[in-house]
Amino acid sequence: MAKDKKLVEAITSMDTDFAQWYTDVVKKAELIDYTSVKGCMVIKPSGYAIWENIQKELDARFKATGVENVYLPMFIPESLLQKEKDHVEGFAPEVAWVTHGGLEPLQERMCVRPTSETLFCDFYAKEIQSYRDLPKVYNQWCSVVRWEKTTRPFLRSREFLWQEGHTAHATAREAEERTIQMLNVYADFCEEVLAIPVIRGQKTDKEKFAGAEATYTIESLMHDGKALQSGTSHNFGDGFAKAFEIQYTDKDNKLQYVHQTSWGMTTRMIGAIIMVHGDDSGLVLPPRIAPVQVMVIPIAQHKEGVLDKACAIRQELLEAGFRVKVDDSDKSPGWKFSEQEMKGIPVRIEIGPKDIEAGQAVIVRRDNREKTIVSLEELSGKLSEILDTMQKEMLERARAHRDAHTYDAADYGEFVKILEEKPGFVRAMWCRDQACEDKIKEDTTATARCMPFRQERISDVCVCCGKPAKAMVYWGKAY
Amino acid sequence: MAKDKKLVEAITSMDTDFAQWYTDVVKKAELIDYTSVKGCMVIKPSGYAIWENIQKELDARFKATGVENVYLPMFIPESLLQKEKDHVEGFAPEVAWVTHGGLEPLQERMCVRPTSETLFCDFYAKEIQSYRDLPKVYNQWCSVVRWEKTTRPFLRSREFLWQEGHTAHATAREAEERTIQMLNVYADFCEEVLAIPVIRGQKTDKEKFAGAEATYTIESLMHDGKALQSGTSHNFGDGFAKAFEIQYTDKDNKLQYVHQTSWGMTTRMIGAIIMVHGDDSGLVLPPRIAPVQVMVIPIAQHKEGVLDKACAIRQELLEAGFRVKVDDSDKSPGWKFSEQEMKGIPVRIEIGPKDIEAGQAVIVRRDNREKTIVSLEELSGKLSEILDTMQKEMLERARAHRDAHTYDAADYGEFVKILEEKPGFVRAMWCRDQACEDKIKEDTTATARCMPFRQERISDVCVCCGKPAKAMVYWGKAY
Repeated sequence: MAKDKKLVEAITSMDTDFAQWYTDVVKKAELIDYTSVKGCMVIKPSGYAIWENIQKELDARFKATGVENVYLPMFIPESLLQKEKDHVEGFAPEVAWVTHGGLEPLQERMCVRPTSETLFCDFYAKEIQSYRDLPKVYNQWCSVVRWEKTTRPFLRSREFLWQEGHTAHATAREAEERTIQMLNVYADFCEEVLAIPVIRGQKTDKEKFAGAEATYTIESLMHDGKALQSGTSHNFGDGFAKAFEIQYTDKDNKLQYVHQTSWGMTTRMIGAIIMVHGDDSGLVLPPRIAPVQVMVIPIAQHKEGVLDKACAIRQELLEAGFRVKVDDSDKSPGWKFSEQEMKGIPVRIEIGPKDIEAGQAVIVRRDNREKTIVSLEELSGKLSEILDTMQKEMLERARAHRDAHTYDAADYGEFVKILEEKPGFVRAMWCRDQACEDKIKEDTTATARCMPFRQERISDVCVCCGKPAKAMVYWGKAY
Repeated sequence: MAKDKKLVEAITSMDTDFAQWYTDVVKKAELIDYTSVKGCMVIKPSGYAIWENIQKELDARFKATGVENVYLPMFIPESLLQKEKDHVEGFAPEVAWVTHGGLEPLQERMCVRPTSETLFCDFYAKEIQSYRDLPKVYNQWCSVVRWEKTTRPFLRSREFLWQEGHTAHATAREAEERTIQMLNVYADFCEEVLAIPVIRGQKTDKEKFAGAEATYTIESLMHDGKALQSGTSHNFGDGFAKAFEIQYTDKDNKLQYVHQTSWGMTTRMIGAIIMVHGDDSGLVLPPRIAPVQVMVIPIAQHKEGVLDKACAIRQELLEAGFRVKVDDSDKSPGWKFSEQEMKGIPVRIEIGPKDIEAGQAVIVRRDNREKTIVSLEELSGKLSEILDTMQKEMLERARAHRDAHTYDAADYGEFVKILEEKPGFVRAMWCRDQACEDKIKEDTTATARCMPFRQERISDVCVCCGKPAKAMVYWGKAY
């Protein structure tokens, strides 16, 4: 078991240095690798397979709400990016510029899309003529580029993968409904599939998307008590429609502007999975998103019949619909256990000569190491139960952790003290004046994560300035 | 039926002007739209859904051969692109250059990937140490950019979508086997799923990929007699490995260079589907790739029970695994027929009051307009048969068309005359001297499409220079 320890010792403990632990897990679980391109990474097979499962799940949920997929160019001419004033101010400082095509300089430089509102608007302006052309509910899966100064794998990189939905509607009401609908798709996906509980709410004006009337967000809490913005949905009203002249003729033959939304979720969710569920042995993947759900590990595999039995179990479980592999390498069982744990594979099945004799196998859960001895006849049914329970308990555990790290503050001194001493969310009242947001950020580095849909009245006045309170806010330090 | 005619008249006839017919179909079948970004296009829902099906089918076939998906950056630093001499010469003239990140000039400019050999090599040089790390059989789905001067939807655009597989192997033999294996995956996919027959063969040195030792290709023939390179697979030998120092320690503890391959298929296959199967009424999609396989069109849908019955049929067919929709719009049946034909939906089911009374429906095939009256009880089984037959006959028809447009020439006068007068492939012998290829191109604009794996001996001497023949070549004018 010497090698076993070596693998675990290869990662820093969470409590010693959470940031280093994160980087270690990302590397040792073989999710990413760094590249010669500063701030950009390789997503390796184990990481990309998680993204494929995220795509599959989200895409099916999108399509069930009538979303259609499209693909727009990756380049945006500078003049197009500049059409909506707030939008260009938000993004121009962090885009990558293409200035030459082949050997010749371009007449107009283009940026690599940081997001595609302007391209969709340009497209919709041509596509939409009549109320019959509405709504448009389009989405694309692609990569985008934002020239960030400091980067971290999955959480903040110069290029990342995402989906971006862009819709156009006849009425303001329909646009608002779609904005909320997609936020709920994200929230349900996070909770049901990633086992990550989220707070649903609205961003403050300071934190909203460049060019949006309203930005809605789901916020989750990482193991270290820092918040992660996990998905956003924006209502643009008719602001972009006016800048890009996207008009339709209504049933009364009058010209009207469309109302638009956009919404996105990114590969940063892989970072969220790591930081919500991981432990000192590595990654822990929720069964519903795990590319491999079950690793069958033969014990004393050189003995006759062991490997055959392991393969027979794999075959049976594959046919029952599980994602399963056998580790038949020449490593020791202890080493294989460590690798399975480092990679976050939800359960392992141990099968050795004594198990075979007794007609049983041992199922070990990754999250709590619980062992269950199961008769081989009941393996598939029992495995299904264990994975369901694990999925449910991972969500419950994450929710309990979040709730235990969510504090209320009515007094500014207390508010600042909590933010200094206790990592987590602080719920406090706010006057809706940006000056207070700015002061809080300066005093604590915390930001308004969201004004939750479920408002509660913690006190009557703003925690910062003492003026009448207008909203309860989740405050926190964020990735 | 006035509107019916109008829609069909909206496209040019194939015989009048094939290029214009193609552009018309691409637009009227709502596959693409042009954008403000010159040479780049929007792939609309009907076009993107075809690509999604191509991805799904190919990806499953790749994974069955052990391929794993990854994602590498879209940018390549100039110094990296320059590491392999032939490669940089092939691609540098047509790349887009990023020179600024945000407000600052980059220290080293980067191109947007035209293909990712150099990035994979940089990655593999770090990843591969020992024979235990081999083989690496990775693939990515992404977009690439080549700054072409003249562009055509799907066939040649400045940005296009594709997959690119990149592998590294311990031995030359293994690399060669993988190169051929993936070419066969492409060929089988084209024939079985897209109903497009292909010639499998090897490119001449003049036509091979920049940096490859050998390039294999599948070539298909479009309706107008022009060839389309439909998928390529390259064996790099150890050329890139030497340029990028990708070495591993073998079992005898000796340092060895790896042997590499790459292989790609692109959105241009959507262009191939259009140009192989389309007709003067629009697109014709093979059932296996069609996003919607069946359009149920109610006749006299205002009459009681008609729409209900159409929806019940849809439901039954959905449950039986077909991709099916009902056209319940307020357009006339004739108009709906035209739309279904323009969009290439493989069959329509007509259901009206008389059909309901008789307990039947009418199935109409898109490709040959054959009508079959089917009892509603047998609908699903009969539909399945019809779609299978259609898939098979589309391939046979395309093969018959190709064979009827494939000529043999032993004499140069005859060779040139055929290429001038008869669109199609010309099979002729070649001495393997590039001077003859150059002359043929100058005299006829035709190029060597491939040296087919199935060699035949048409004559003993090169059709061009009369020296001893070394290979039979498919010659043709190409997209």
